[in-house]
Amino acid sequence: MTKIEMAHGAGGRIMQRLLQEVIIPSFSIRKLGSIGLDEMDDGATLPIGNTGLIVTADAHTVQPLFFPGGNIGTLAACGTINDLAVMGAAPTAMTNTIIVEEGFEIDTLHEIVRSMNDVIEPLGTAMIAGDTKVMPKGTLDGLVMSTTGIGVLYLNAAIADAGVREGDDIIVTGPIGDHGTALLAHREGLKFETNLASDVAPLWEPIRNCLDVSGFHIHAMKDPTRGGLAVALNEFAAKSHVEIEIEDGLVPVRPAVQSLCDILGLSPFHIACEGRAIMAVDSSVTSDVLDTLARFRTTDNACVIGKAHKGASRVLMKTAIGGRKVLQVPLGEPVPRVC
Amino acid sequence: MTKIEMAHGAGGRIMQRLLQEVIIPSFSIRKLGSIGLDEMDDGATLPIGNTGLIVTADAHTVQPLFFPGGNIGTLAACGTINDLAVMGAAPTAMTNTIIVEEGFEIDTLHEIVRSMNDVIEPLGTAMIAGDTKVMPKGTLDGLVMSTTGIGVLYLNAAIADAGVREGDDIIVTGPIGDHGTALLAHREGLKFETNLASDVAPLWEPIRNCLDVSGFHIHAMKDPTRGGLAVALNEFAAKSHVEIEIEDGLVPVRPAVQSLCDILGLSPFHIACEGRAIMAVDSSVTSDVLDTLARFRTTDNACVIGKAHKGASRVLMKTAIGGRKVLQVPLGEPVPRVC
Repeated sequence: MTKIEMAHGAGGRIMQRLLQEVIIPSFSIRKLGSIGLDEMDDGATLPIGNTGLIVTADAHTVQPLFFPGGNIGTLAACGTINDLAVMGAAPTAMTNTIIVEEGFEIDTLHEIVRSMNDVIEPLGTAMIAGDTKVMPKGTLDGLVMSTTGIGVLYLNAAIADAGVREGDDIIVTGPIGDHGTALLAHREGLKFETNLASDVAPLWEPIRNCLDVSGFHIHAMKDPTRGGLAVALNEFAAKSHVEIEIEDGLVPVRPAVQSLCDILGLSPFHIACEGRAIMAVDSSVTSDVLDTLARFRTTDNACVIGKAHKGASRVLMKTAIGGRKVLQVPLGEPVPRVC
Repeated sequence: MTKIEMAHGAGGRIMQRLLQEVIIPSFSIRKLGSIGLDEMDDGATLPIGNTGLIVTADAHTVQPLFFPGGNIGTLAACGTINDLAVMGAAPTAMTNTIIVEEGFEIDTLHEIVRSMNDVIEPLGTAMIAGDTKVMPKGTLDGLVMSTTGIGVLYLNAAIADAGVREGDDIIVTGPIGDHGTALLAHREGLKFETNLASDVAPLWEPIRNCLDVSGFHIHAMKDPTRGGLAVALNEFAAKSHVEIEIEDGLVPVRPAVQSLCDILGLSPFHIACEGRAIMAVDSSVTSDVLDTLARFRTTDNACVIGKAHKGASRVLMKTAIGGRKVLQVPLGEPVPRVC
């Protein structure tokens, strides 16, 4: 394969290969703290004096720019906040670059940046730097953005994907697959699914409250974006050297999401979320964490979906009839330009 | 004007209006230290504990991706390093996001990221986080990137555009307009100008050495990118409330740059550089700074081009025959997709 394919940006195995074989090894200095490029976590650690920072970067190419539940501005802000949050960092500052096509409506641009502010202002996050570039008509489909988030570690320790321990409960903070299926339905004009909306939301407030009640007993967190829950759980398993077993029937999936997936032959486990987190927590704090998540509208359907235990670095799924199958990393996210 | 035009991204007055009227006021929290979005400086300050950080963000849309003297990777790395350097910060860490078109050659992508590393590795700058997205064929012209740089203040004080003082000497570190004209000539296939090449280069090493010899006597620095020397000098004058008078005959311009500008009716003062800085320095350190800059290949043609003094916030240019004219901020950069 010598040319870029859509799957190279889609979060699955093909993207992992591109990053591991081409992009990451091109850089000589790849970390300053314990977590950098090689770890392929949600962000990197940056120790400054006695303060532990987390830095995260995302490009945003979602299409269409406006969708049920938000727009590219909402998505860029939430994606950045959530990458910091699942590393255990408060969202301190952000940068944002905008590349926009000649002829784009300025009012639409205005609405997009205001939507970013609607997400970050209540969290006290400062937008401190940015850049705006214009490309000639026909050379860019509308508008893309890139954000970098800088956060201060809340408990002065980064929460890494590699932190899952044997015996941990695996929690998901809400139903999976809403974002990707909402985009797909909206994009394809599937009007029969009227109640599908993106789950895009910032998760720092519920996560901060969980850290308050459980301290260092939250061992790992991740937001299941591109490639969905299947990718996120497999990263936990691979980096933490544990086997994760989840129960199919425990994973919350909205009926509208499930039926759209059934029609199109997709699995909700492979569909991106933009307002969900998975957590691996010590079983001594599971009920405290669930009680805390239940207090927030964006996480009030949180539940335990499985457990980590000693075993091969893989994810097993127990089906309704008692069988077990391996939940694979998909080749890519089945819905393109989802984030 | 209700739609985005090319000039909205071109560094001049039309871009300044878009930023000041649409983008910047959309955000509620715009700084954490003394310099943030409103200051429209090369970067923002971010105080973390006792450490002063500078954060800068840039989008890169240069076309063509490869040009005499470098490629988009060289440019992205140098632009980020230089924005940190002119704020007085050592380049500690970077993030990079890549958005690439389906069908792009992976070898070309590889060369671009290796070129970034060639710039940052010798400076000890770590690439700590990133993201890669793919857009379907026909929705993006090749590849764009966005970088964020995080630097630690070298003298624990940010060097702001607003720092120019009356009596300061104005230094430019080399000939102006090389980058923009090299791109233009290459793009248009103007083969008669064979010796035009971009000036793209990282400036942290010469600037660090200047800070070593002159301490706090370097009052302001800026890299004249979009909109060229005219924009950079006018920002000095406007933000520092001084009049800057430069002498036309003192500003270094290569003959090839001048003749291309003459043919096309352009002014070298409006053309982007990517490896130059302007400095406002206390006259007591001018010769030390010039001696230092002379030791580095990328700055060995540095010279004084004028002086700041009390007066209206404007830039005056003394012509060869002794007249004075106001050097205006252009409406935009005359060469599109230059950076």
